[in-house]
Amino acid sequence: MSKTAAIIGGGVIGGGWAARFALNGWDVQIFDPDAQAKRKVSEVMANARRSLPGLTDVALPAEGSISFHDTIAEAVADAAWIQESVPERLDVKHATFAEIQNACKAGAVIGSSTSGFKPSELQQGAARPEQIMVAHPFNPVYLLPLVELVTTDASPALVETAKDILTSLGMHPLHLKKEIDAHVADRFLEAVWREALWLVKDGIATTEEIDNAIRYGFGIRWAQMGLFETYRVAGGEAGMKHFMAQFGPALKWPWTKLMDVPEFTDELVDLIAGQSDAQSGAHSIRELERIRDANLVTMMRGLKAQDWGAGALINAQERKMRAGTEHGARAADLPADAPVMTAHRTVPLDWTDYNGHMTESRYLLAFADATDRFMEIIGCDAAYIASGGSYFTAETHIRHIDEVHAGAVITIRTRVILGEGKKMHLWHEMFEGDRLLATGEHFLLHVSLDTRKPVPPSAAIEQALARFAQGHAGLPVPEGLGRAIGAAR
Amino acid sequence: MSKTAAIIGGGVIGGGWAARFALNGWDVQIFDPDAQAKRKVSEVMANARRSLPGLTDVALPAEGSISFHDTIAEAVADAAWIQESVPERLDVKHATFAEIQNACKAGAVIGSSTSGFKPSELQQGAARPEQIMVAHPFNPVYLLPLVELVTTDASPALVETAKDILTSLGMHPLHLKKEIDAHVADRFLEAVWREALWLVKDGIATTEEIDNAIRYGFGIRWAQMGLFETYRVAGGEAGMKHFMAQFGPALKWPWTKLMDVPEFTDELVDLIAGQSDAQSGAHSIRELERIRDANLVTMMRGLKAQDWGAGALINAQERKMRAGTEHGARAADLPADAPVMTAHRTVPLDWTDYNGHMTESRYLLAFADATDRFMEIIGCDAAYIASGGSYFTAETHIRHIDEVHAGAVITIRTRVILGEGKKMHLWHEMFEGDRLLATGEHFLLHVSLDTRKPVPPSAAIEQALARFAQGHAGLPVPEGLGRAIGAAR
Repeated sequence: MSKTAAIIGGGVIGGGWAARFALNGWDVQIFDPDAQAKRKVSEVMANARRSLPGLTDVALPAEGSISFHDTIAEAVADAAWIQESVPERLDVKHATFAEIQNACKAGAVIGSSTSGFKPSELQQGAARPEQIMVAHPFNPVYLLPLVELVTTDASPALVETAKDILTSLGMHPLHLKKEIDAHVADRFLEAVWREALWLVKDGIATTEEIDNAIRYGFGIRWAQMGLFETYRVAGGEAGMKHFMAQFGPALKWPWTKLMDVPEFTDELVDLIAGQSDAQSGAHSIRELERIRDANLVTMMRGLKAQDWGAGALINAQERKMRAGTEHGARAADLPADAPVMTAHRTVPLDWTDYNGHMTESRYLLAFADATDRFMEIIGCDAAYIASGGSYFTAETHIRHIDEVHAGAVITIRTRVILGEGKKMHLWHEMFEGDRLLATGEHFLLHVSLDTRKPVPPSAAIEQALARFAQGHAGLPVPEGLGRAIGAAR
Repeated sequence: MSKTAAIIGGGVIGGGWAARFALNGWDVQIFDPDAQAKRKVSEVMANARRSLPGLTDVALPAEGSISFHDTIAEAVADAAWIQESVPERLDVKHATFAEIQNACKAGAVIGSSTSGFKPSELQQGAARPEQIMVAHPFNPVYLLPLVELVTTDASPALVETAKDILTSLGMHPLHLKKEIDAHVADRFLEAVWREALWLVKDGIATTEEIDNAIRYGFGIRWAQMGLFETYRVAGGEAGMKHFMAQFGPALKWPWTKLMDVPEFTDELVDLIAGQSDAQSGAHSIRELERIRDANLVTMMRGLKAQDWGAGALINAQERKMRAGTEHGARAADLPADAPVMTAHRTVPLDWTDYNGHMTESRYLLAFADATDRFMEIIGCDAAYIASGGSYFTAETHIRHIDEVHAGAVITIRTRVILGEGKKMHLWHEMFEGDRLLATGEHFLLHVSLDTRKPVPPSAAIEQALARFAQGHAGLPVPEGLGRAIGAAR
């Protein structure tokens, strides 16, 4: 099979498809009469190049070529996949398919990005209707894996080809065998959109309040488990039937203006409970709770690093927790003749392996955070860094002494071994209680963030650092300082 | 203010509240006539202890006490916050509030976990109606920040107290000033639930297919931006009005059985566009796209580490990419007299700081992954580790030579310095092209995963390791090997 894809219509969706194919090594041939198409696709490509290739821990194949073509015939001639993303008008789509089928191979997949039309509608009047199927992606197409593949009356062999190709692109073909207007996901989006319009119109909530109601609550849950698995967990050990027995009646309440609901028969309850068992029955509810929580912590801490959404809330809480405590103290508040507490924190779930042990690289993360905190203490804080100076780590030596688990509170105490001019040599010790877990020895240089070259820090920082260096010089030399791997053996 | 909370009703929701308060240093007094209440709360507490305290980078205050009480009066007497989570029956709630108000302080907040009732309904017949408000949380209450705070006719001073307390617990009080059945979030959940019941009943999709349609697509988006901000970005630079002009008419299509929709007037479009500007106007669409993508990559790679949802899809793709390539090769396939390629990957967005530079701790993550890959090459793979043996890192030395950005492809080449008995001494070099970025020197010991003590590896592993050790001994000594911090200065 040639790895050539034709993209008919190069907007946000078509451009996203182009990026998905090209970054997975396919040559992409684009047809779009829009004079701005090149610019639009190149903008999508820039976003995609920065985000998609890092998803896997293995580099993607060499990027395929992207070319623009003046006719549909030229774009599709040698393509194995042809993706139609033209406007949502059935007459426009029919005309496009006719042009495509005049020029393309009979063995090529023709996928439509339509969010609304059924395959049977798209296929009307086509020369080879069995070649056309719905392949409905989600924005950003280069990142989100879902593709609704609706294949009424499509050639079974071609459907298998389509599934293989989508999977090879890192996508998830959700194969719907029965067609319906708007497929599945957009029906939910429509339902939520309509409810949201009422809430705004009736003055119950603003767009921002609605978005927060989603992203601080069920939105995070739905990033990892959907509706039914989430409710299965909520139902507890008693299971899905129990949940529905509780929740079912609420369907009759006048909670919404959207009231045509299916009757809650025993048959429907059994159908759902049976499907839920097939879906999630391999895990106990207790296991699912722990999986859910590990997922939520991982995503929330990820968003914390991005300072966004639920993660921004955590950062705000943390700033309040630091204010007025040892966690927010500056050099002048701290004695210079004792190690400085630079961390007192709980090992989070996303720092651990499946056994609950803290993983190797998180030791350096904890030490790097402790270094950041020490920098803040001596005045190299966010405002100073924004002014153009900072410390960069040149060298690190970590000794792993003992293991630690998620949920343990760890403390890091830090000593200045050398603090002079551009140079800062730190010694971190990580404890759980009085159990030594690891030591971290770090050599840093103060740099200009413009030139990325070493330069002296501000006088205030140099002074604060020198004060600790002098004070700590009186302490006993730490065991393991200046050690080299292999030297002691 | 006393930091004492009373929890009336100790199921999954009440237990979640108890955990949220106790882990934030509040003493918690629980009333629940259920004989299983202690067990149920202790199970929720176990989940919460493992997940909540690690969200922040600062340890939470010392855990408060949890006590169980035989009467509501005893539980609420000295509480500053009283949370009602009894069954969703208005008569039961009214009786509960009467008992609470007989015994509690007039200055305490009485919050109800109700998902459906309006404050005006809860307050009916109360001695002090102004003390009662809706504080509707989301499961798991100890992790998700959202609380819908609906305060019709509540005392304004008490509402401020309630917001302060919820915020101090790391929660987000979404303050709704106008009451409505089911508040906001559950109206969306209801709409989706009803649509989902139709899809299952009509045989369009199973519960698993529906869950996948959510979590592989819009669910991940909604974990970080809600409905309106997502659509604002989709609308592109033309903005929210443009999006609605495109999407609006679709509301008239027969896409759902839930058809009572608000009329799409200019007034409604202006209202929404204006609110959206107020909400998201501080960022350009281009910025929002990049924020969205960084959030998505972060969450998807987080789920990859958990091997769940969209992250499990990435792992499946990666396994296929490795099979039959250098990325999946074993010792016997590789020459012993040259460094071994142990990584060839793209720096992901979640490895970088806000400037796009790879952060310190991710160098160790890359080296640790390279070590894992080398272990796999010599036969210390998942199956071997499951049988009870593995290598643990005892010591690490990293030198940072040059910077690297998100999107760069990095390669790690690995040499065995010593491979003998329990000992493995590795030397990693990380490159972008031929630019040396960092070196990582690692000393590992083979251990029994039962005893956590050093023991020799299998004969096959020892042999494979010795072969590389011998072959690599003929290569020039790497610059920087066996270096100690400070020694060279």
